[in-house]
Amino acid sequence: MERRKLELVKSLLKRIHEGADPESLKKEFGEVLAEVSPAEIPVIEQQLVKEGVPVQEILRMCDIHVALFRDYLISRELKGVPEGHPLDLLLRENELILKWAEQLSVVANALANASNGEATPLLQQLRALLSNLRAVRTHYRKIQMLLFPYLERRGIVAVPRVLWGREDQAILKLRALLKRVEGELPPEEAREVAKEAAGLARELAELVFRENKILFPALWVLLTEGEWAAVAEEARKIGYLVEVERRWEPKAEPVLPYQTEPRVEEGGLERLPPEFRAVAAGVEPDRYKLVREGDLDLGTGFLSPEEVGGIFRALPVEVTFADANDRVRFYSDGLLPPAFVRTRTILGRKLLYCHPPRLERLVRETVEALRRGEADYREFWTRIGGRVVRVFISAVRDENGRYLGALEVVEDFTEVLRNPEEVLKKVVVL
Amino acid sequence: MERRKLELVKSLLKRIHEGADPESLKKEFGEVLAEVSPAEIPVIEQQLVKEGVPVQEILRMCDIHVALFRDYLISRELKGVPEGHPLDLLLRENELILKWAEQLSVVANALANASNGEATPLLQQLRALLSNLRAVRTHYRKIQMLLFPYLERRGIVAVPRVLWGREDQAILKLRALLKRVEGELPPEEAREVAKEAAGLARELAELVFRENKILFPALWVLLTEGEWAAVAEEARKIGYLVEVERRWEPKAEPVLPYQTEPRVEEGGLERLPPEFRAVAAGVEPDRYKLVREGDLDLGTGFLSPEEVGGIFRALPVEVTFADANDRVRFYSDGLLPPAFVRTRTILGRKLLYCHPPRLERLVRETVEALRRGEADYREFWTRIGGRVVRVFISAVRDENGRYLGALEVVEDFTEVLRNPEEVLKKVVVL
Repeated sequence: MERRKLELVKSLLKRIHEGADPESLKKEFGEVLAEVSPAEIPVIEQQLVKEGVPVQEILRMCDIHVALFRDYLISRELKGVPEGHPLDLLLRENELILKWAEQLSVVANALANASNGEATPLLQQLRALLSNLRAVRTHYRKIQMLLFPYLERRGIVAVPRVLWGREDQAILKLRALLKRVEGELPPEEAREVAKEAAGLARELAELVFRENKILFPALWVLLTEGEWAAVAEEARKIGYLVEVERRWEPKAEPVLPYQTEPRVEEGGLERLPPEFRAVAAGVEPDRYKLVREGDLDLGTGFLSPEEVGGIFRALPVEVTFADANDRVRFYSDGLLPPAFVRTRTILGRKLLYCHPPRLERLVRETVEALRRGEADYREFWTRIGGRVVRVFISAVRDENGRYLGALEVVEDFTEVLRNPEEVLKKVVVL
Repeated sequence: MERRKLELVKSLLKRIHEGADPESLKKEFGEVLAEVSPAEIPVIEQQLVKEGVPVQEILRMCDIHVALFRDYLISRELKGVPEGHPLDLLLRENELILKWAEQLSVVANALANASNGEATPLLQQLRALLSNLRAVRTHYRKIQMLLFPYLERRGIVAVPRVLWGREDQAILKLRALLKRVEGELPPEEAREVAKEAAGLARELAELVFRENKILFPALWVLLTEGEWAAVAEEARKIGYLVEVERRWEPKAEPVLPYQTEPRVEEGGLERLPPEFRAVAAGVEPDRYKLVREGDLDLGTGFLSPEEVGGIFRALPVEVTFADANDRVRFYSDGLLPPAFVRTRTILGRKLLYCHPPRLERLVRETVEALRRGEADYREFWTRIGGRVVRVFISAVRDENGRYLGALEVVEDFTEVLRNPEEVLKKVVVL
């Protein structure tokens, strides 16, 4: 970093600190901003700390840096993205992530060079920032679950795999760091952890740039209005890190990946970022036909009657279903040894008659509470032979909330209850 | 009990003890047997013990008593039941239960009147007999799940409800007794327990008589060959307490309760035991039509597509299904907060692409093991946020074992693992 740049940025930051308006600063310091990439900021900040600028002061400026660099961050191609559009919200999430990464970088670098006396409060701050960063999963999840499938459908597989690999590495690093900072650390180890945290901050910032400069412009070229409409709809299940002030109104019906007729249009190729142009040219699109004749449309997928039967037999629980008339209509033979044996002679039987008279009242009250919508489920624990099982009774409703019947789900918890420590030993990172 | 009867039975038992053949004894003592009901035997035995006959000797005779009283036990109406027929096997189970009840009675009565010194070995024996008796549930279960539904279908409801109530009481008493004899008991309490055990023995024997004299003859009159064929078929899932040496070959196709056109034939009424004749006369049969237009026949029941969807949404687990081509075909939004969010954009996606590259190998190996039939399932435990979840992956196969795909079942075990003691406190008797 040349001395001149550093001096310019320093005076810029000083003006920010004095409360100057970012927009007027942008005009005044346009020349410097053109020369300094956001990736250089952490390096500059580190030098400022060395020169005696307090960490807390720099932290407070991170917000403004991101605003200053917005023009750089959002590439020219993305200027037309409407407010509230999934891509607009993802870009805004990235501003937030970049700010968090910058804050992490400032604190981590300060801690890495801190004296033993200064380490403790900085470690506390590092811990809070790392904990805060767990929320970035919400951002990556949308990219991995909502956007990548559209690329895969077009035969573009390598880019999403590589990107997911990096996101995964960042998250694993974050989890490991969170574990390490759980308790107090000796200053030496705290400085060690800080170096790794600075590395994580760098990786997160790089991911922001990679998305903003390559992935998002490519998606903006490739995806149709209908595809974005589907992304917007499904994104509601995952949520955003930023507040959605205005909802985007798409002008097309939602189109899910399996519904697309995948191809990359000739003209589109040229508008792709160079990193994408090469991979998108020679690929074979994925033309897998999901929906087959006779499939049940279940809203969240398509199954043949044969698959429905097979799935019930593959569950680690036994289910029994009584319809809205309280008649047993279906039971499953699960995969594991049954807790309660069911036979086909109970099909059509009144639910109350499936239990001893002693339990009639309990069964009736449970079913009535479900039918009236007073509860979604009730659970009971009981012993069968030497085993402890949970009997979970839940209301089955159609998509409009109309009562269709009661489901009994029986599951054996004996092993888990007997040896919870053994189970916890089996926990792995997935 | 008059003295003369007692003397006759005593000499009968003496002859048995000397090894005489039950069949020749039956001829010789025909007159006594006609006068003594099996229910009187425990009373006679108790007197024999009082008169100094050792308990162990009487216990050994219980087998033979039952053989002696077989003619009495199996009413005349049931003589034509073919070997291996469900009713034949139920009758044979009842001989066994009667023998167990008699043994329990002998030991319990001896213990009730035992000196402190004699109590310990008798308590040990009582414990073993009670533990053995748990198997009677297998007998009752067949009556409750296989036979009662055919009566209910004919509108005969009170008899099965009352009978189930008594069976349930006996089982609850048995469970309570088993709990009380778990550890050592002071002689006073042991004698107390013994009195209750003698009561249980009486109840079990009464149930045998009630079934053999009333329930079974009525069923023999009412049920068709096809209905017995269905009972025989479904009984295999429950099993028998006795060995099935010869399988009965029905001359009709199985008919389940919901498949019957229920009515009690005019002529049949007269052949019913008197206890049944009154209730069977004025009743309204149950004509509930189970199968509806458009229902899926799942082998163990009938569901509308709407009910299938509703059931998946009512499960306390989330499932995701990838078909035989390893394509995501379905996922469910379960009832509880999701561990892994799923969106419709993953429908049709390659299973491998639903995970970070780091897990590709694990996913591939797991699915291949299921596909090749090397395993029915694999389970993994992992942490998501602060929660511990089980990821259960099982093979979905059709009824002929052909691979249809892989099912992922995700379930939150956090609470159970955190507070196993709290869960165990919730256990109730169902």
